[in-house]
Amino acid sequence: MADSGRGILLVVSGPSGVGKGTVINGLMEQYPDVTLSVSCTTRPPRAGESDGQDYQFVSDSEFEQMRRSGELLEWAQVHGRHYYGTLRQPVEEALAAGRTLVLEIDYQGAKSVREQLGEQAVLVFVAPPSWEALIERLRKRHTESEQAIAERLASAREEIENMEMYDYVVVNDEVAEAVQQLSGILLAEQQTIERFDWRRLRDELLAQADGWR
Amino acid sequence: MADSGRGILLVVSGPSGVGKGTVINGLMEQYPDVTLSVSCTTRPPRAGESDGQDYQFVSDSEFEQMRRSGELLEWAQVHGRHYYGTLRQPVEEALAAGRTLVLEIDYQGAKSVREQLGEQAVLVFVAPPSWEALIERLRKRHTESEQAIAERLASAREEIENMEMYDYVVVNDEVAEAVQQLSGILLAEQQTIERFDWRRLRDELLAQADGWR
Repeated sequence: MADSGRGILLVVSGPSGVGKGTVINGLMEQYPDVTLSVSCTTRPPRAGESDGQDYQFVSDSEFEQMRRSGELLEWAQVHGRHYYGTLRQPVEEALAAGRTLVLEIDYQGAKSVREQLGEQAVLVFVAPPSWEALIERLRKRHTESEQAIAERLASAREEIENMEMYDYVVVNDEVAEAVQQLSGILLAEQQTIERFDWRRLRDELLAQADGWR
Repeated sequence: MADSGRGILLVVSGPSGVGKGTVINGLMEQYPDVTLSVSCTTRPPRAGESDGQDYQFVSDSEFEQMRRSGELLEWAQVHGRHYYGTLRQPVEEALAAGRTLVLEIDYQGAKSVREQLGEQAVLVFVAPPSWEALIERLRKRHTESEQAIAERLASAREEIENMEMYDYVVVNDEVAEAVQQLSGILLAEQQTIERFDWRRLRDELLAQADGWR
């Protein structure tokens, strides 16, 4: 019915620990057509991660090659160590097919996507209800050293400082509410006059009206 | 939680018979805080309608007085007969208090609201899935002569020709789906960076981060 014409690249950013993954999973449960974009990374796979599913695991030289040849829509070096990036081609193919893709990246990646895709990308910032809540969530993971947590908090600060760049802000206090807001953003974006194929609908309705006379 | 700072005037237009009222009622059931703006009209009350609830019923001279003194945010003469209008003051008060108001008006009214309130108004066009469906719904009412139906269809054509002016298009094929889309539009608009009080959130989070160090 609502032929959205062009797909949507839903970019979701926010401090690590804020619950981006949980909110995105909630969205995808409601809308099974929405798919998560798989990033490339040079970091080694963690236990349970599989290549092509969680990430596309590549070597430093493979990554460097992709970057140089302009195959990456965005990329970043995280905490001065590993590289992460998004291949341009699968994103462009999905959008051309009218699909909705979700991309979980940081503010530098979001900025790069906005520069290259303009309004076809929808930028959502997921914010914590408080700094304390963010720290608690990071500590609850029990997987990281205090040093790693301090690094994540420094990045979190930078993310928060760049909130203004986004199209929407969702506060993840209650997960269900945040999921509902993210779903609302997706539904609304599909119905915007820029994306909705209003010319076709208008012309069809007017042709039917003429035929009926 | 999400302090929207400024209220939203949700303008809903579309051909008569498209089901605007049904979709708006569905929205208000989900969000009891959303209120319908009560229009003024010079047409006589129909059976069951009460003054101040359905409309504010006024005389021709009262309406003319309101219009001349600039008290109306928008007004229209419908089918060359009765006048309809929206008082500016209650709308401005509701928006200043951060409330969401729904206004069901035609494209001329929507245009006038956009000119006066800019992006604080969100314009939604409710379209029928087909011209035939629209005719069927108008005939089902059994309340109107063929002459009245013909007038409504002529207006419907004009409405459809002006679809481009709106921010969003919702096709009312399945009511539940249309209600969900309208709810999504409202949720999304409350989280836009323009309406969301991101400066306050950012400053609070950064102050908390500084205090924690």
